[in-house]
Amino acid sequence: MAREKKRLAELAALVQGELIGDPEVLIGGVADFDNAGNGDITFVADLKRGARLGECKASAIIVPASVTEINGAAIRVKNPYLAVALIHTLFVEEPFVATGIDARAVVGENCHIPAEVSISPLVYVGNRVRLGQRVKLHPGVVVYDDAVIGDDVVLYGNVTIGHSCHIGNRVIIHSGAVIGSDGFGYATDGSGRHFKRPQVGMVRIDDDVEIGANTCIDRATFGTTWIKRGTKIDNLVQLGHNVVIGEDALIVAQVGMAGSVTTGNNVVIGGQVGLGGHIHLGDRAMIAAKSGVHSNLEPGSIVAGIPAIPHKTWLRSSAGYAKLPEMVRELRELRRKVAELSRAITPDGAAAPGNNE
Amino acid sequence: MAREKKRLAELAALVQGELIGDPEVLIGGVADFDNAGNGDITFVADLKRGARLGECKASAIIVPASVTEINGAAIRVKNPYLAVALIHTLFVEEPFVATGIDARAVVGENCHIPAEVSISPLVYVGNRVRLGQRVKLHPGVVVYDDAVIGDDVVLYGNVTIGHSCHIGNRVIIHSGAVIGSDGFGYATDGSGRHFKRPQVGMVRIDDDVEIGANTCIDRATFGTTWIKRGTKIDNLVQLGHNVVIGEDALIVAQVGMAGSVTTGNNVVIGGQVGLGGHIHLGDRAMIAAKSGVHSNLEPGSIVAGIPAIPHKTWLRSSAGYAKLPEMVRELRELRRKVAELSRAITPDGAAAPGNNE
Amino acid sequence: MAREKKRLAELAALVQGELIGDPEVLIGGVADFDNAGNGDITFVADLKRGARLGECKASAIIVPASVTEINGAAIRVKNPYLAVALIHTLFVEEPFVATGIDARAVVGENCHIPAEVSISPLVYVGNRVRLGQRVKLHPGVVVYDDAVIGDDVVLYGNVTIGHSCHIGNRVIIHSGAVIGSDGFGYATDGSGRHFKRPQVGMVRIDDDVEIGANTCIDRATFGTTWIKRGTKIDNLVQLGHNVVIGEDALIVAQVGMAGSVTTGNNVVIGGQVGLGGHIHLGDRAMIAAKSGVHSNLEPGSIVAGIPAIPHKTWLRSSAGYAKLPEMVRELRELRRKVAELSRAITPDGAAAPGNNE
Repeated sequence: MAREKKRLAELAALVQGELIGDPEVLIGGVADFDNAGNGDITFVADLKRGARLGECKASAIIVPASVTEINGAAIRVKNPYLAVALIHTLFVEEPFVATGIDARAVVGENCHIPAEVSISPLVYVGNRVRLGQRVKLHPGVVVYDDAVIGDDVVLYGNVTIGHSCHIGNRVIIHSGAVIGSDGFGYATDGSGRHFKRPQVGMVRIDDDVEIGANTCIDRATFGTTWIKRGTKIDNLVQLGHNVVIGEDALIVAQVGMAGSVTTGNNVVIGGQVGLGGHIHLGDRAMIAAKSGVHSNLEPGSIVAGIPAIPHKTWLRSSAGYAKLPEMVRELRELRRKVAELSRAITPDGAAAPGNNE
Repeated sequence: MAREKKRLAELAALVQGELIGDPEVLIGGVADFDNAGNGDITFVADLKRGARLGECKASAIIVPASVTEINGAAIRVKNPYLAVALIHTLFVEEPFVATGIDARAVVGENCHIPAEVSISPLVYVGNRVRLGQRVKLHPGVVVYDDAVIGDDVVLYGNVTIGHSCHIGNRVIIHSGAVIGSDGFGYATDGSGRHFKRPQVGMVRIDDDVEIGANTCIDRATFGTTWIKRGTKIDNLVQLGHNVVIGEDALIVAQVGMAGSVTTGNNVVIGGQVGLGGHIHLGDRAMIAAKSGVHSNLEPGSIVAGIPAIPHKTWLRSSAGYAKLPEMVRELRELRRKVAELSRAITPDGAAAPGNNE
Repeated sequence: MAREKKRLAELAALVQGELIGDPEVLIGGVADFDNAGNGDITFVADLKRGARLGECKASAIIVPASVTEINGAAIRVKNPYLAVALIHTLFVEEPFVATGIDARAVVGENCHIPAEVSISPLVYVGNRVRLGQRVKLHPGVVVYDDAVIGDDVVLYGNVTIGHSCHIGNRVIIHSGAVIGSDGFGYATDGSGRHFKRPQVGMVRIDDDVEIGANTCIDRATFGTTWIKRGTKIDNLVQLGHNVVIGEDALIVAQVGMAGSVTTGNNVVIGGQVGLGGHIHLGDRAMIAAKSGVHSNLEPGSIVAGIPAIPHKTWLRSSAGYAKLPEMVRELRELRRKVAELSRAITPDGAAAPGNNE
């Protein structure tokens, strides 16, 4: 597992950063600030940590543009997190090792499976499944009939891919996620009994999507539940039938979307948010954690609360909420005082000037 | 996969609808409004879509009673969703194909398994398990000892059925669901350590229940966690020990119920709702998404909020919440004005008439 | 399955309770109050049930100290739930039966596996895995490379343990739980594309922890996501990367914690609570169900709401919330009255004494 070391100059070029100090410093990996040692590169994302630069034992450090006083070797960049992601990936990514189809895996008929794949023991692949190059299926994965899976896809342990679903290239799906379960659709008769509406659509996951552990994405009733390129979905998220998520979204853990929600690109949805059915979120909409959204959001909206309101209003409303007991008391007191004043002005009950009642 | 076509008259009779146009039109399947073509039947559920009837390329259309101007072939019904569910099911349901017990499945001792079942590869069935007719166990399913499973049950990939649990007829359980995990029950000693209370009860799922992907239903501490006939449960739902759900409930995704919640029939529980322990929901109670309920609900209640209050009140309270910052400001202003008025009337601080302080 | 019977005196000694009645009564098991019969011991936890003691058909009963009038055999204890937990465990715990490694399990290379384990069919164990004594791996379990699992651990069906994770002694993990999935960490470039930050840390679970079905615990970005001794976690919980939970916590179902949350010991977190990233909960902090916490909590805090406020305030604020529509009306009415009074005093609009505007 000994990684090839890289010259600092090479890393600076990779992230288009400004090289400070010795370009020949050799770096063998990335570590966090407190644990980095000789041969590591580490990073500071904010100035607070920057103040502790002197304590750092790493051979080099990635710093934001705002840090100007640096003694040792460093790379100065606009976005330290991005630089770390790129450099760290360089060090940890492993070449794909094709182990083929393990004898203890089960593969159905008429599949299209390239030579260069890794299908672990205890994997089940149905009939007429198409796999791309360098697909890795971990133990316990179940891929149903007629699924199509792109190049360089990783499905972790016990993932389920429903029949006829399409998975793009470089998609990563974590353990226990379920893609293509039936949507929750019933018709109810006059006596209150529910009749299942067949869910005959599919799920399409585009390139570079990542899906968290035990997340569920239902197939469409008709048509397609669709997650577009580059979207990242956390653990235990629920996406209902016919949901369409735009490109490059971030959907944090335990979010739930009812059927037919659609979104533009680059939306950010906080943890445990719930979205009502058939609404649209415009590009770059941001929803604070635990909010409940029941209507469309304009592009660039920032909202919070149940039901969601503009985030700025919510901040003040939630401060007001904590003062509600006091407000109830004050309102009572004001009523009393106003009644007194009223009596003071019109002690005999006669109408005061201006009182039209 | 070519389906047998049906005469429109036959479909109209099935759904007890009013046949409009040619009874001999042949229908081969159901499609949604925008994608339906020749040989399809489609539907409109509301008048808005009804206004676009002329655009429809389907051979026939299911319309609600309110639609009166129809040019082509149609079936007019009270409840289009119900009619679609029945007709669509007719077209998509496949005859059960018994593949028996795959050699790569694992089945324990003393089980009762009819000839007409389909047990996929990589299924595990424990000892003394009883399966009904036409049961289908998908790959990765784990059925523990002494479980009893009824006729026509489908367990999708990686479902777990705990020991001694009883599953009724025509039950569908989606991938990754866990039936019969231990309830969350501990006793805590004086030093704060928690001791597990054995969870020795079981889970009983009655006929025609459907359970979503990655949903968890805990076994009872003593006795039975019980889901009654016809109830439909969405994905990622958590039902605690000794919960009893009545018939024909709809429980939307990510609902959580603490232990010993009980409900009447036909309750509807929105997504991400949380129910506190040991409460009872009366028949037909409806709970809006994201609500938190901590006390019993009368039959027919409609509630929302945390804690839940009548839905009508909640609508106005939530509107008031958005106005809280303004209310705080107004209250401050009123206090100031009342103090001024007070001074104006009693500039020397003497008690005004009617002021008893 | 016939259990050895125990003398009541022996059970009383086990729980350090006061024996009442015949010490020689033989007890064969624990049952709940309504179903207990001859040979059973049962319990009442509160006085309400105590009032029904005469109806009890059990051979003996565990009662709290507050119950003084008892006719039959009993054990009087400070904490009936704790006594029941200990006595019930005595009756139901089964000796470990080592079945070894089933031929239909898959075990990698260079593992350390003692003779006394039970590895079921359809289990996958990677390379260089270390298992303790009396480990039980149920069907469908996936243990990745380099994991370390302590003594007396039970992993139920379809549990996934990620590579390099460490599981302590006597840990129980329920079906479908995922330990060691990647944390949700990305860096975003100027065009809005997200780049995965490698998640190279691990998860450490200490002794006597129990983890619920389909719960997800992400590995650390760097370092360790750490659950300390004795903590109990319910179903469908999400713990982000680098979370550290203290000892003896109770974390109820569907809780979600963002990355780097840390807690002291003995915290109690209600169902569906959400915790923002990088906050610390002091020892014994308690958070009511469905709350959202975005800042540190002092030891012993009791909070509720979104955002969380002191529980006592929340109780009154939530009562005020239901009165908001009325408050809006009253505020409007007061404004009207104050304006009237103002006009009554200064009908010509001249400033009244004390009015400095």
